[in-house]
Amino acid sequence: MSMVNAFDATAADHLDPEDRALIDRRSKVLGPAYRLFYDEPLHLVRGEGAWVWDKAGKKYLDAYNNVASMGHCHPHVVQAISAQLGVLNTHTRYLHDGVVDYAERLLSTMPDALGHVMFTCTGSEANDLALRIARSYTRRQGVIVTRLAYHGLSEAVSELSPSLGDFVPRGPRVRLIDAPNALTIPPKEQGAKLAADLASAIVDMRADGIEPAAFIVDTVFSSDGLYPDPAGFLQPAVDLIRAEGGLFIADEVQPGFARTGEAMWGFQRHGLVPDMVTMGKPMGNGFPVSGTAMQPHLVAEFGEKARYFNTFGGNPVAAAAGMAVLDVIETEGLQENARRVGGYLKAGLEDIASGHRNIAQVRGAGLFLAVECMNEDDSPDAARARFVVNHLRRNGVLISATGPGANILKIRPPLILSEAEADHFIAATRAAFAAA
Amino acid sequence: MSMVNAFDATAADHLDPEDRALIDRRSKVLGPAYRLFYDEPLHLVRGEGAWVWDKAGKKYLDAYNNVASMGHCHPHVVQAISAQLGVLNTHTRYLHDGVVDYAERLLSTMPDALGHVMFTCTGSEANDLALRIARSYTRRQGVIVTRLAYHGLSEAVSELSPSLGDFVPRGPRVRLIDAPNALTIPPKEQGAKLAADLASAIVDMRADGIEPAAFIVDTVFSSDGLYPDPAGFLQPAVDLIRAEGGLFIADEVQPGFARTGEAMWGFQRHGLVPDMVTMGKPMGNGFPVSGTAMQPHLVAEFGEKARYFNTFGGNPVAAAAGMAVLDVIETEGLQENARRVGGYLKAGLEDIASGHRNIAQVRGAGLFLAVECMNEDDSPDAARARFVVNHLRRNGVLISATGPGANILKIRPPLILSEAEADHFIAATRAAFAAA
Repeated sequence: MSMVNAFDATAADHLDPEDRALIDRRSKVLGPAYRLFYDEPLHLVRGEGAWVWDKAGKKYLDAYNNVASMGHCHPHVVQAISAQLGVLNTHTRYLHDGVVDYAERLLSTMPDALGHVMFTCTGSEANDLALRIARSYTRRQGVIVTRLAYHGLSEAVSELSPSLGDFVPRGPRVRLIDAPNALTIPPKEQGAKLAADLASAIVDMRADGIEPAAFIVDTVFSSDGLYPDPAGFLQPAVDLIRAEGGLFIADEVQPGFARTGEAMWGFQRHGLVPDMVTMGKPMGNGFPVSGTAMQPHLVAEFGEKARYFNTFGGNPVAAAAGMAVLDVIETEGLQENARRVGGYLKAGLEDIASGHRNIAQVRGAGLFLAVECMNEDDSPDAARARFVVNHLRRNGVLISATGPGANILKIRPPLILSEAEADHFIAATRAAFAAA
Repeated sequence: MSMVNAFDATAADHLDPEDRALIDRRSKVLGPAYRLFYDEPLHLVRGEGAWVWDKAGKKYLDAYNNVASMGHCHPHVVQAISAQLGVLNTHTRYLHDGVVDYAERLLSTMPDALGHVMFTCTGSEANDLALRIARSYTRRQGVIVTRLAYHGLSEAVSELSPSLGDFVPRGPRVRLIDAPNALTIPPKEQGAKLAADLASAIVDMRADGIEPAAFIVDTVFSSDGLYPDPAGFLQPAVDLIRAEGGLFIADEVQPGFARTGEAMWGFQRHGLVPDMVTMGKPMGNGFPVSGTAMQPHLVAEFGEKARYFNTFGGNPVAAAAGMAVLDVIETEGLQENARRVGGYLKAGLEDIASGHRNIAQVRGAGLFLAVECMNEDDSPDAARARFVVNHLRRNGVLISATGPGANILKIRPPLILSEAEADHFIAATRAAFAAA
């Protein structure tokens, strides 16, 4: 599967000579596995708030960054990391207040049943740890994920990431089911459909002698095309996996940390209490910190017999970064801002859609929005999505696209987005669709 | 397998009440998988150079830290990270000079054949990526590691980490062979012995229908007990794995970045050119950065068909951290310091050993040294090692122990260690052995 919105290196002739030279040097040393975004890659040199600047001094509204969710270079986070870097940076085999204070505060944002949290450095590591614990606890191997899921890139979780394409081995232990589809399935049927698909996957797995250890989903189905609604539709599938002896793991790398506006975590919109919760991306606003929260009984034996030590995971600087992000979410009211400005932005996009026959749907929650582009014959309009993404980029607004048809605009501005910035985004998007 | 030098939480009565309370809070939120060091855990609050301070203000010479190898809170590294944090911290799907400059400089420290480097966040991720590429390139699954190897904690590389104990599944694809043993095998036989053991493992694997994809070793065999000598003994095994169609992966997470004094990388002491090289721990002096270097042909197909994107891996701040570490190694002459002060420290330890019938051997390279404690009946003297480790800790010097018998002192001071600090270490070690 080729990557949506990837730069095509064979079409580099039109680029600035300096950028072309840098791309050549980059390919030479980083090799062929790296990809750049956009028809014309962006050469960035500075970031602040919702904005980034390229080397020519042109500024861009970054509406596609789920890492710097507090805004680029947020001074409170930068200060907290820098200060701790200058004082002490060891690891969790020495006692340190920072990691304990942070773990307590992080867990206080979740249901009480999620009693422990373990720290890792990347979302992949968080999901890989959840998987190890799930398989160890259940003595089972099978995992069910959605058809275009992305849960990371370690060998074990790359098996759970079909969005990486068919060259990445899926192995015998994984089954894929359809993600929700808000265009073709009525809202009130989403829950039953997902549970029925999960049931079929379990039957199929058992026919090969594999028992289900876990059902893992991104609770807003980001890479599948963004399907947060209707709130509550996950419950039947979660009930089913538990009835069948497996665990429910909520991958909150994308929806977590207040992005959906209505809740700190995506699973809370569904009224669920997961067995495990994985977190990453915005957790340190760019500092590599991630984690896995879990119900304590799941890790009792694993903890005693296998132990876990992640050299950088939960070190004093990582804890300071994570704590600073929670400070910013709280003191700046970012969950409420995501709800309010996200709603405003969605209304603006719906207004564009109402006059445009090639926009099938605007959906999302808080500051995570999707615009689905369809041809008049109801086939996915990937060409329009690509045009809009690159038109916006040329006009100083950054988004990308996703979905099995590469036709769904993926919009994820920082949680600090203002209404004025939302207006800027809406105007640029209106212009892009008008030009398409 | 229980962890060497782990704190026993059931023996907490003698601890400071505040520390006991923190340990309780810590267990409650982090759960049972975490371990602390020492009979009496260390509650650290500050670090500088080769020293750390506990909350009572007592200082400790940190001779066991392979992360802060440039010294705790090295001002050049702190400054480089802090400065970049305040300017821009995005990712590798935008063009940025930092990651390209760093990759070029890092690769310039290696043989030309290692033409690409890919960036990850932890040593586990670096090894996991190497494993994915090795299996993809060879279309084979089998891996051979040493009996007490540690290569990380993702599901796939935890299979390659028998030092985690038998509860961690090894799976059908992995075979274990003896590490070198400098006490029982004459130096000139080490190379042939290792190759013969590798050959047997390959035969055993093939009997189960599994072909060898790779032979992975820490090039100083840290967790097995530290066996860097004689230089060159790895060559026959490396020749063999290649003759059998597998790859040789050098895990440089421990020996890399000048620790062995004589070379930047452990494999260079053996005169080898690996197929892949993995790096971590000291690479960012505590900032989570790691990487996998490789011969370009290995990643050509993987790069095209599977792509690789690690959200934080190689971001502008990670590149700045890595670059600053290379600056410090170069400008402060740390490879030469590791060679010179390491030799001085080793001579001091050999002097202690020469008067002590329970020290069987002092060995190592540069500032990575081991002291093997044996009973008079030639059984491993784990009790003495534990006594010395905890005696040193009480007297303000930090080391730990390793090896299958938990009887090998593991000594890894920062590369900035001075002769005066080495004298301090030698005096404390002499006192610990005298009291044992």
